[in-house]
Amino acid sequence: MENFRKAELIETLLPKDTNGYGNIFGGVIMSIMDKTAGVACWRYSKRRVVTACAQRISFHTPINMGEVVYSRATIIYVGRCSMEVEVEVDVENVIEGNTRRAASGIFTMVAVDENWHPTPVPPWQPVTEPELDKWRQVEKRRKAEK
Amino acid sequence: MENFRKAELIETLLPKDTNGYGNIFGGVIMSIMDKTAGVACWRYSKRRVVTACAQRISFHTPINMGEVVYSRATIIYVGRCSMEVEVEVDVENVIEGNTRRAASGIFTMVAVDENWHPTPVPPWQPVTEPELDKWRQVEKRRKAEK
Amino acid sequence: MENFRKAELIETLLPKDTNGYGNIFGGVIMSIMDKTAGVACWRYSKRRVVTACAQRISFHTPINMGEVVYSRATIIYVGRCSMEVEVEVDVENVIEGNTRRAASGIFTMVAVDENWHPTPVPPWQPVTEPELDKWRQVEKRRKAEK
Amino acid sequence: MENFRKAELIETLLPKDTNGYGNIFGGVIMSIMDKTAGVACWRYSKRRVVTACAQRISFHTPINMGEVVYSRATIIYVGRCSMEVEVEVDVENVIEGNTRRAASGIFTMVAVDENWHPTPVPPWQPVTEPELDKWRQVEKRRKAEK
Amino acid sequence: MENFRKAELIETLLPKDTNGYGNIFGGVIMSIMDKTAGVACWRYSKRRVVTACAQRISFHTPINMGEVVYSRATIIYVGRCSMEVEVEVDVENVIEGNTRRAASGIFTMVAVDENWHPTPVPPWQPVTEPELDKWRQVEKRRKAEK
Amino acid sequence: MENFRKAELIETLLPKDTNGYGNIFGGVIMSIMDKTAGVACWRYSKRRVVTACAQRISFHTPINMGEVVYSRATIIYVGRCSMEVEVEVDVENVIEGNTRRAASGIFTMVAVDENWHPTPVPPWQPVTEPELDKWRQVEKRRKAEK
Repeated sequence: MENFRKAELIETLLPKDTNGYGNIFGGVIMSIMDKTAGVACWRYSKRRVVTACAQRISFHTPINMGEVVYSRATIIYVGRCSMEVEVEVDVENVIEGNTRRAASGIFTMVAVDENWHPTPVPPWQPVTEPELDKWRQVEKRRKAEK
Repeated sequence: MENFRKAELIETLLPKDTNGYGNIFGGVIMSIMDKTAGVACWRYSKRRVVTACAQRISFHTPINMGEVVYSRATIIYVGRCSMEVEVEVDVENVIEGNTRRAASGIFTMVAVDENWHPTPVPPWQPVTEPELDKWRQVEKRRKAEK
Repeated sequence: MENFRKAELIETLLPKDTNGYGNIFGGVIMSIMDKTAGVACWRYSKRRVVTACAQRISFHTPINMGEVVYSRATIIYVGRCSMEVEVEVDVENVIEGNTRRAASGIFTMVAVDENWHPTPVPPWQPVTEPELDKWRQVEKRRKAEK
Repeated sequence: MENFRKAELIETLLPKDTNGYGNIFGGVIMSIMDKTAGVACWRYSKRRVVTACAQRISFHTPINMGEVVYSRATIIYVGRCSMEVEVEVDVENVIEGNTRRAASGIFTMVAVDENWHPTPVPPWQPVTEPELDKWRQVEKRRKAEK
Repeated sequence: MENFRKAELIETLLPKDTNGYGNIFGGVIMSIMDKTAGVACWRYSKRRVVTACAQRISFHTPINMGEVVYSRATIIYVGRCSMEVEVEVDVENVIEGNTRRAASGIFTMVAVDENWHPTPVPPWQPVTEPELDKWRQVEKRRKAEK
Repeated sequence: MENFRKAELIETLLPKDTNGYGNIFGGVIMSIMDKTAGVACWRYSKRRVVTACAQRISFHTPINMGEVVYSRATIIYVGRCSMEVEVEVDVENVIEGNTRRAASGIFTMVAVDENWHPTPVPPWQPVTEPELDKWRQVEKRRKAEK
């Protein structure tokens, strides 16, 4: 089963989640993305995880109340104690019957022990070409950051 | 695509959703089930829907904070203006890596127009044996209720 | 004092409790009903209780923001570890000065100990004719379910 | 019916309403008191009302999660556009079976029209001795404030 | 540093905080004021504090969604175990670029130990003329209350 | 007044904002940062703004319940319709009396008209050396992204 490094959350939002303009508050979407990344890493590492960093999160389109939000996370890189997770958010307008990309981003999560110190996670190696592509992009970015 | 009469919501709950005993408040689960039934009927009928009735909702096991809640709805009977929706809730303990049935129930939803009057929905006929089974069970219950 | 097997909650709801159509979200009402049933059983049994089942919950009329919601629970049947609770919800439009039945249902609650195992509750016997009526209806339903 | 100048809200609070010490956050109680005063004035005046002032609100005892909160409001003075409302909060520990006074205060509410300008409310005259007592206390305080 | 007896909270509110008329629910403002008073006393006394009393809280103007709320607390009187805190709330309409006083009040907070018994706080003496003024007003009120 | 391109929010968080480990949920912090960036741009541009992108958000330390969160936003780059906002989050442990950096990030916000189309904002030119530094860093990043 390939799902051990994936997670999906699906929510439909209520008026309490809207901003003053009647569409969904950006922070609500970031929260859902963060939770999805957390579940993926929790499931993969079987350990407590904390968010170390949210790489560039892009918002492609506003989300309106009542639309169904699909947040999908995939672990694309595994370091010693950290995991990089790609999160993509689609929204479906169920009345009109169409779906569009709403947001995307990459989160860096770190596994921690009871004292909040980083703790190792199981290794993972990319196999398919798309997996290798994403892995190399993370490696490249990590080198550039040093 | 057979998904036109189905919907799924997947959520992971936070401390604010717990009752005084540290597990998820029953009303929170009923709310998620109700929302899932609503999305399925909204997608199917392309109309505003209201909950008319929740048939027997059973809670099979307590749900703990941090577990992932899968709520899946399937329309099993379509009347002139009403739809009967079976909702099943599974929870996954992502750390232990196992899943169990947590709750199930049947909701009766009614499509309404802008004045909140019942309005017709598209017809649907069950085809497979399991579909026919569930349809007949609803018919039987509806007759018994008259 | 006959109130030892009753409970009442009275709330007035805010915009955060509304669905996308401007009236109160069905799940919010189910939550209030569940909480009221819980208080009645808590008061009666002096024990921790969990919701085992919500028998048929009917919604008779939409509830609008600002209306006052009266949720009243009465224990109508007491088994060894379980209690059946009738919950009735009325709403008052305080501006127009009228009240109407909004929802009703029966909840089965179970008393549990610290390990979440069912634990006995004090016995109760119906006395008046209406009490005996409701008791017998539950007995009849329970037999039919077996 | 004497209830035209009274209102009652009964709530049981959840973990989300607690402060960092595990008991109910003081602001939550003030909110319930304010809502109860609002319902009483709404019911009495049939008009939109705003809170002008909360006279001395006293907290007599901490409130713990799971306790049932009874908030009762009574209009004790009616001016041209304003109403003074006494609000008393009791809490019941349903497990121990006892009740205690938790908070009390007086709220001044003003009826307003669509443009938020004060608008007259129906007159009311106290009749009983306790009613006259409270009325005179408000009059005395109002004179002292001038 | 004079800030040891002050605190400030700045919030911008969302639709979930509005009442039925589209402006901010009075109870939400009282909650923010109570929290600000709590932070000031927490910072000053380094002890757990509870709200004993909210002296007259006045609401000067409605607050609309999206406006920025500035709640500022200053300890103006220090008794043996209690502190009196003046809280002033201003709101800024960032689009129009103006600010106005929205609410003000005085809270009496009490430092408590782990058993919720009052516990002494460090002494403080007013120095400047405005400080002395406010101190004397509290003393006068406290005497009148006896 | 130099504050026309700055904003600050100060909040103290409650149990409802915690994750399952008893400290503040990462999504809550991202929401506060997003709101602060929004207020700064709203104040600067006098226009409706939407979040287009959250550049790298770093979390430096966990935040615990009851700590005071200071979120400060400064507009560091102004394009034709977009603004880049640096947001820094500090937390103060008021009992221990110390403060630490908790999170930081850069948000790209876009001013929009009523039809959600980008709309021009007033120009701004950096003057001081630190302002020019930050401006050039954004320019460099923007070029690299093309």
